Amino acid sequence: MGDIEIGQSKRARAAFDFDQIALVPSRRTRDPENVSTSWKIDAFEFSHPIIAAPADSVVSPTSAAQLSALGGLTVLNLEGLWTRYADPTAAFAEIAAANSNTISSVLQKVYAQPIDPELIVARIKEMRAAGIVTAASLSPKLTQKYWQQVVAAGVDLFVIRGATVSAEHVSNGDDPLNLKEFIYELEVPVIVGGCATYQAALHLMRAGAAGVLVGFGGGSSGTTTAVLGVKVPMATAVADVAAARRDYLDESGGRYVQVIADGGVHQTGDVAKAIACGADAVMVGSMLARASDAPGSGFHWAVEAGHPTLPRASAIATTAIGNFEQILHGPAVNSAGLLNAVGALRRSMATCGYSDIKELQRVEVIVSQ
Amino acid sequence: MGDIEIGQSKRARAAFDFDQIALVPSRRTRDPENVSTSWKIDAFEFSHPIIAAPADSVVSPTSAAQLSALGGLTVLNLEGLWTRYADPTAAFAEIAAANSNTISSVLQKVYAQPIDPELIVARIKEMRAAGIVTAASLSPKLTQKYWQQVVAAGVDLFVIRGATVSAEHVSNGDDPLNLKEFIYELEVPVIVGGCATYQAALHLMRAGAAGVLVGFGGGSSGTTTAVLGVKVPMATAVADVAAARRDYLDESGGRYVQVIADGGVHQTGDVAKAIACGADAVMVGSMLARASDAPGSGFHWAVEAGHPTLPRASAIATTAIGNFEQILHGPAVNSAGLLNAVGALRRSMATCGYSDIKELQRVEVIVSQ
Amino acid sequence: MGDIEIGQSKRARAAFDFDQIALVPSRRTRDPENVSTSWKIDAFEFSHPIIAAPADSVVSPTSAAQLSALGGLTVLNLEGLWTRYADPTAAFAEIAAANSNTISSVLQKVYAQPIDPELIVARIKEMRAAGIVTAASLSPKLTQKYWQQVVAAGVDLFVIRGATVSAEHVSNGDDPLNLKEFIYELEVPVIVGGCATYQAALHLMRAGAAGVLVGFGGGSSGTTTAVLGVKVPMATAVADVAAARRDYLDESGGRYVQVIADGGVHQTGDVAKAIACGADAVMVGSMLARASDAPGSGFHWAVEAGHPTLPRASAIATTAIGNFEQILHGPAVNSAGLLNAVGALRRSMATCGYSDIKELQRVEVIVSQ
Amino acid sequence: MGDIEIGQSKRARAAFDFDQIALVPSRRTRDPENVSTSWKIDAFEFSHPIIAAPADSVVSPTSAAQLSALGGLTVLNLEGLWTRYADPTAAFAEIAAANSNTISSVLQKVYAQPIDPELIVARIKEMRAAGIVTAASLSPKLTQKYWQQVVAAGVDLFVIRGATVSAEHVSNGDDPLNLKEFIYELEVPVIVGGCATYQAALHLMRAGAAGVLVGFGGGSSGTTTAVLGVKVPMATAVADVAAARRDYLDESGGRYVQVIADGGVHQTGDVAKAIACGADAVMVGSMLARASDAPGSGFHWAVEAGHPTLPRASAIATTAIGNFEQILHGPAVNSAGLLNAVGALRRSMATCGYSDIKELQRVEVIVSQ
Repeated sequence: MGDIEIGQSKRARAAFDFDQIALVPSRRTRDPENVSTSWKIDAFEFSHPIIAAPADSVVSPTSAAQLSALGGLTVLNLEGLWTRYADPTAAFAEIAAANSNTISSVLQKVYAQPIDPELIVARIKEMRAAGIVTAASLSPKLTQKYWQQVVAAGVDLFVIRGATVSAEHVSNGDDPLNLKEFIYELEVPVIVGGCATYQAALHLMRAGAAGVLVGFGGGSSGTTTAVLGVKVPMATAVADVAAARRDYLDESGGRYVQVIADGGVHQTGDVAKAIACGADAVMVGSMLARASDAPGSGFHWAVEAGHPTLPRASAIATTAIGNFEQILHGPAVNSAGLLNAVGALRRSMATCGYSDIKELQRVEVIVSQ
Repeated sequence: MGDIEIGQSKRARAAFDFDQIALVPSRRTRDPENVSTSWKIDAFEFSHPIIAAPADSVVSPTSAAQLSALGGLTVLNLEGLWTRYADPTAAFAEIAAANSNTISSVLQKVYAQPIDPELIVARIKEMRAAGIVTAASLSPKLTQKYWQQVVAAGVDLFVIRGATVSAEHVSNGDDPLNLKEFIYELEVPVIVGGCATYQAALHLMRAGAAGVLVGFGGGSSGTTTAVLGVKVPMATAVADVAAARRDYLDESGGRYVQVIADGGVHQTGDVAKAIACGADAVMVGSMLARASDAPGSGFHWAVEAGHPTLPRASAIATTAIGNFEQILHGPAVNSAGLLNAVGALRRSMATCGYSDIKELQRVEVIVSQ
Repeated sequence: MGDIEIGQSKRARAAFDFDQIALVPSRRTRDPENVSTSWKIDAFEFSHPIIAAPADSVVSPTSAAQLSALGGLTVLNLEGLWTRYADPTAAFAEIAAANSNTISSVLQKVYAQPIDPELIVARIKEMRAAGIVTAASLSPKLTQKYWQQVVAAGVDLFVIRGATVSAEHVSNGDDPLNLKEFIYELEVPVIVGGCATYQAALHLMRAGAAGVLVGFGGGSSGTTTAVLGVKVPMATAVADVAAARRDYLDESGGRYVQVIADGGVHQTGDVAKAIACGADAVMVGSMLARASDAPGSGFHWAVEAGHPTLPRASAIATTAIGNFEQILHGPAVNSAGLLNAVGALRRSMATCGYSDIKELQRVEVIVSQ
Repeated sequence: MGDIEIGQSKRARAAFDFDQIALVPSRRTRDPENVSTSWKIDAFEFSHPIIAAPADSVVSPTSAAQLSALGGLTVLNLEGLWTRYADPTAAFAEIAAANSNTISSVLQKVYAQPIDPELIVARIKEMRAAGIVTAASLSPKLTQKYWQQVVAAGVDLFVIRGATVSAEHVSNGDDPLNLKEFIYELEVPVIVGGCATYQAALHLMRAGAAGVLVGFGGGSSGTTTAVLGVKVPMATAVADVAAARRDYLDESGGRYVQVIADGGVHQTGDVAKAIACGADAVMVGSMLARASDAPGSGFHWAVEAGHPTLPRASAIATTAIGNFEQILHGPAVNSAGLLNAVGALRRSMATCGYSDIKELQRVEVIVSQ
């Protein structure tokens, strides 16, 4: 249980965040024009591996279409404001009018409105009508309740996302979601998480997941450590889950599960770092919430920020730095690492000498403290 | 003596604070409703393991009743203002009127008033009258002087608490307290500390303690390192003392001594971290001093802050963030990790997949720097 | 691939920056007057090893003459403002008028002007006319295009400098520069880089380089980590490349390649640190850009700061602290480590007991975190 | 040469400062009244081991008498203002009138005045007349020039102090001081340093030193790392030199050389930390310069701050926090660790369970980062 002795009765592993590591170029270099950033999950192919997270500050039915047109997978949160309000305009306006002192209670208030199952169906149909890859997320609890509507409405990719999702949930209450049975019965591919360890990920892979989310969801606005004492530094979590992918690939005789870093990707350089640790794709929230065309109205927040009795994320104020297109494809106007994320990934691959994402997973990394 | 070479004539161990570690979820999850946070010492059972520290800013005869009603053990300091003044109102008012420049000398002044032994008896009777588990603390020096009065007045749990308490105190002056004889003679269970090492804790356990306090008392307001050069990072101290508990359990043929982390628990997540290192319960000061109904009047201080010639703690200014109930049981209105401590512990256990405190001690931890 | 486990599928090396290390004096001391700071590359000898970097904020045809007179090698950037404008006065004025918000876009604008090949020739001739060692730099891409003009114009030292230069560039486009053939054909000595690893450096040495630049060019204004996720802490990079120099010395039967630390040298003490790691010389930008006679007009920037779509460096505001002479030879008026760089190096050698730069490479270093 | 690989051609040791370590109490405690803080060198005994450093901001002929009366050894700098000016009042006034921008050049100016050998004699006689242990310091260079006057004037303890003093100085100029011959010829005990390594210290011990100063002199105002790249973290340096003391004790058949930590002692807790690493005494500057009766006039500076061309220390502004007596013997009015240094040391020994300084050297230490 780790090579560090905390005290005589407890050992621990050292774990690393993306900001503690960096990529080292190989002895080869390439032209940025000659590298590929494409990413594929199941039958769906994307021109880049940057997934828009199911956060109300990033993905609305409208922005999903915009973001899809820019080449990436986009996930709508089916437990967000769009399924609680037929017209969430007033709720977004209330958020936009908040300040750093009031935002927590505003979020608790607007998310107190119950979810309307009919809106779940309506939102999925809205996305389908836009002709995009329709991906939407539910927590494990509500997955059990609403999955039939979601599938019937025509979702392409089903995302089951909670702070921690395990394939082995123990409950004395209602019969909990049996992920293994559920996923095999489903006709659509499932992305599921967060998970953060080899064992947890392996169980999710065995349950049939097409992709696993690595992390605890809260992302850059998460405060899980302060509130719960729980933390899984992302570089370590991704590298552990990538080991589970490798072992499951062998055990399953060739089923390759997508490893998606969900959290910790704050600057463009973090995309390359996540891949260097073994990720196939990244799910980002705050990075896209800074878009002038993001629905966040000056804030970014994870759904955990609206919890009625134990919020485990904060809303963070955002300043618009460009639109979705500029954030993903540039041009960057400074070197803050917030714009031209796909261009930066391409350049990173070229500098380090790798030609596609799978190859970049092999890049040497250093720890710098 | 440690695997780090400081220099050619000195080796050392690495030691860790709670903020350097975090819990890692297991592959299982649970419903928060299905976990138990209860804690037991001797014949007394509590619904949660968060003990109110014997600090005048937290525990008065009045607040002891409030806090007990909220489910936890509460300890009155018998060397605080309540045994120095029949009516400490004026002293508290002087503290409330102080600012960060004057508070140190105000504390030195109000604590210069000698202790009145009759008030020791009166305060214990006051607590008994309230029908709560009556726990009160003395330093080793005054324990020797006043223990008979304390026991006669009907204390349920006797707490002997000093910056460092050893079972082997060397003195050329008055015959010092012989802990071993003393504890075995006493009819009430004794909690004793601070201690911070395997050896010191083992000696206290052998002396008959029902619980040992791990730490140096000063807690979040302590400046022992600056003044004395002494420091025992809490994660390491707790894990060392938990090893002593395990070995003493074997040696004694089954006597289980409660390990209580006394210091370092500043945010709700630290409760789970202390338990992860092997604690059975935590003793908190600053966390409860932020209550609107705490007696601290805008400050939190440890008794060491009032030392006449060598203060080893600072008074820290506090801002009320909710009442005792909200701090312990929520609801939390933001994600700062200061409210709903019991709810956070419950959620932490559920997320990590453990059903009671004893089980949570097994959770995997990581070091993140 | 390193002794640190990031996670189960990824290992890494720890890497160190100059600010994490320091020199330890040997048991001998010397008089500062009796040590030599001289440095030699090919047939050119200099009284100190501090090379002025090809940054427009530092080296102009005029300042090159000043800096050469002060004893050091000075490199003009042939892709900077002096080859884009016959008279760059207006461009420098626009930069001088910028503030921290506008400087990025001003740089993108003034560097959008294309390079005029005739100015390349003119600038080299200007430097030659000043009677100094004429050193000038091009990126690999433009080296291929303009090297004949540069050589014909009479350059003494040819510097090929990019963020990452490899001896093995893969391109599907125009035939890329074949460094090995190119350098052997050339009649002038070539300094080439940046590189950051043993392998990459060894390949450049085998390609015939007289000196290799260690680092990523951006120096103190670089933000490569934020943008690309790439970073090579300088102490480690220099010590790795010095190992390549040693092995190539053996393999080549005696060809000693100069190792030049290009980045990370911010204070005078960093010069000694770079040498302690194995460098023969250092290339500095920001340190000289603080000169009252530097052309930078209140800013220092690397050429990467002007990239049209993905800037990977920031312009940093500078305050004049003395002229070139004072920065290099003193007197220092305070102990900030920004003045009298050569005097400081001399004193460092004397304190540690070494008499020349080659000897100083043997000094013991410690890691201090 | 160390167990950390900086890069493939360079290894290093980890080295530690006092603020990275702390003392751990043993299983025993003592009464503060029953511990001894006394310290002895040669025939001179002191009630505590805190030596006043030869800094003009701390020691004048007048303050030397005050500080001696408070129980400690006090060293006058014979290259300071008191030997440059018959009446340094005006120089001190100029310093007092300076601000943080002008202080460096003011120091360069007032220290430009040459040393008057007659004043060296006069100042020593002044101290003798006060009936105190007369200790005074010279740099190695001036020791050679003036030692006869110093000894003739009746110094009790001769201190040779430079940034780095080696027993093996190499010079092409005037014949340098041969420490070994010099010390054996001298009739008074010699304290010599700074040194920072086992080897350098062993050579000084073999040269006959009664005490060695560990460190680089500049102390809290030193900027040697920024300027020269040289640094020896104090915990490591003291522990290395203590190893040399142990080995020399054996080799010499019983000569015990005093190890004096000269630098890094900023707070009262650092005194205990230095002893824990093996020091017998500490030399402090900034701690005493904060006295209302210190001659520093609102600044503390090391003599290196006045160097004409390469200052390697900064003057730091000080705020009076009490007089010499309060700083050494209390009472402390807060817990900042700046007052009652001897009382804090006494309490630290009591808490950790040790009865004298030699015993305290055995205390367990931890590394906390």
